[in-house]
Amino acid sequence: MTISKTPEILRTVAQVRQWRQSSLSANSPTVGFVPTMGALHAGHLSLIRSSLQHNDRTIISIFVNPSQFAPHEDLDAYPRTLDTDLQLIRDTFGGLARGVDAVFVPKISEIYPSGINLDVSQQRGAFVSVLGCLEQLEGVTRPQFFRGVATVVTKLINVVMPTNIYFGQKDAQQCVVIKNLVKDLLIPTRVNVLPTLRELNGLAMSSRNKYLSDDMRLRSAVIYKALRTGEEYYESVKEKGEKVKASEILEKIRPVIASDKDFEIEYISINHPETLDELEFVEPGVGALVSTAVKVPKENSNEKARLIDNIILH
Amino acid sequence: MTISKTPEILRTVAQVRQWRQSSLSANSPTVGFVPTMGALHAGHLSLIRSSLQHNDRTIISIFVNPSQFAPHEDLDAYPRTLDTDLQLIRDTFGGLARGVDAVFVPKISEIYPSGINLDVSQQRGAFVSVLGCLEQLEGVTRPQFFRGVATVVTKLINVVMPTNIYFGQKDAQQCVVIKNLVKDLLIPTRVNVLPTLRELNGLAMSSRNKYLSDDMRLRSAVIYKALRTGEEYYESVKEKGEKVKASEILEKIRPVIASDKDFEIEYISINHPETLDELEFVEPGVGALVSTAVKVPKENSNEKARLIDNIILH
Repeated sequence: MTISKTPEILRTVAQVRQWRQSSLSANSPTVGFVPTMGALHAGHLSLIRSSLQHNDRTIISIFVNPSQFAPHEDLDAYPRTLDTDLQLIRDTFGGLARGVDAVFVPKISEIYPSGINLDVSQQRGAFVSVLGCLEQLEGVTRPQFFRGVATVVTKLINVVMPTNIYFGQKDAQQCVVIKNLVKDLLIPTRVNVLPTLRELNGLAMSSRNKYLSDDMRLRSAVIYKALRTGEEYYESVKEKGEKVKASEILEKIRPVIASDKDFEIEYISINHPETLDELEFVEPGVGALVSTAVKVPKENSNEKARLIDNIILH
Repeated sequence: MTISKTPEILRTVAQVRQWRQSSLSANSPTVGFVPTMGALHAGHLSLIRSSLQHNDRTIISIFVNPSQFAPHEDLDAYPRTLDTDLQLIRDTFGGLARGVDAVFVPKISEIYPSGINLDVSQQRGAFVSVLGCLEQLEGVTRPQFFRGVATVVTKLINVVMPTNIYFGQKDAQQCVVIKNLVKDLLIPTRVNVLPTLRELNGLAMSSRNKYLSDDMRLRSAVIYKALRTGEEYYESVKEKGEKVKASEILEKIRPVIASDKDFEIEYISINHPETLDELEFVEPGVGALVSTAVKVPKENSNEKARLIDNIILH
């Protein structure tokens, strides 16, 4: 018999611990965990799907983490669409025998029992830093961002104690930060990074794509195309058994994106896939993370949307 | 039937996890954990004794944590007396039906899988900071110390997953750092702080007391006597229902220690017991930590031993 399942909504740390405890007792099943900030899209759903496939229980969190916002960034304006998110989960997984078991939707005070000040200089209490991979790439414009991510993920793991935790490759630096965090702090959880989900034309799926006109959405496909051009060049040199100059790969990528005059390249960068050190050469076997941030015009606005994407060279 | 017990020696994280797993399966018993840097003395034994009383299983760790030493401090010279320590544990608790179950003695690479550089500016990987209580008191002279403590305790907790963890009130700031850490990071462990163990004359027990001559050991009792003088003054004013000026308490304490011309007061300080903020007034109900560091002459040496002690006002 299959029973259509409505996930349990858990609001407090104590409720999650109790849920976890009762899950544990049943012949020690595996627990999969997908932490999100809500505004769920197909990318999140694919993480949830993978968790459902590989674990006896699946729990999702929806929490807009204040410590990864700076005072000038608009924490209050971040989309909060809890009802839509829950409906999406029910619609997508409700008919399955093994659906989503629980959704953790904590208040800020549950996750930051000592409070949280957005002004970093005023912050008090425990924070987790992953030295060496906080300040490059996405960390250049948002220096507090990855400390906030590392801190909240540590807290959530301590509450949920998952066997498996799931992240999307789209946020490549976040994945590196969390892999290092889990390894260094000896956290007994397996970090699973799933491939970036893409629209048919190759554009990486993102909550921000909805800011784009249909035309701009088509044109933005050039970002992934450019990364692929770099990858093809790398593969062609690698075939000769040589290590590849990073600058030469960048020279292949940059003009493809720059060909659209409305696009503003913030960075294109080639980094070590585990340490995020900037690379002069890409060595086959070690590989590299090739990542970029590009600003493209929003629909009906003078503002720009900031799109990120990346590929891994092997 | 009581069986005299020899604790299991565990060398790797994997061995501890397996030990923990097998402890768990037996009707989910409680696990008590006493982390140490070895060189065990009566203070440690009292922590272990408390763990044995209140938990089904007790595990100790012996690990000299490199990240709480600075490059100019002599990590290599720190006493490592593993055989003596293990013998002391066997002698003290070996005859008990419920003795120490396991001693975790990891290599540095087990606890720092990405390596550890003593030079803070060169450090990479995950570290835990407890902002607001790292830089005062003991943190003034050793700015990296409590980040190192917070980081290693987080790691050890993630490996051992104890129900209860034990620390001595003697290291008051360490206790505050760890209480905040466990609270803020939502770690499911209870922090137990046990009273400072004292010699008959009142001197706080410490590995460093062995540097003192018999005469100096007697004279050093003045440190605790001074703290008690401050406490008596506080109690006398508190009885009148008034909050007490911190500076007035300090004025009672300082001359008692300063009366011995061989003693060099590094600090005497009155701080909030939870935030460690320096206090202008001590309010009954909130209370305060009164702490001091004093340098006293070592036996047969021109060097000084640095003794710390503290009391809590309620």
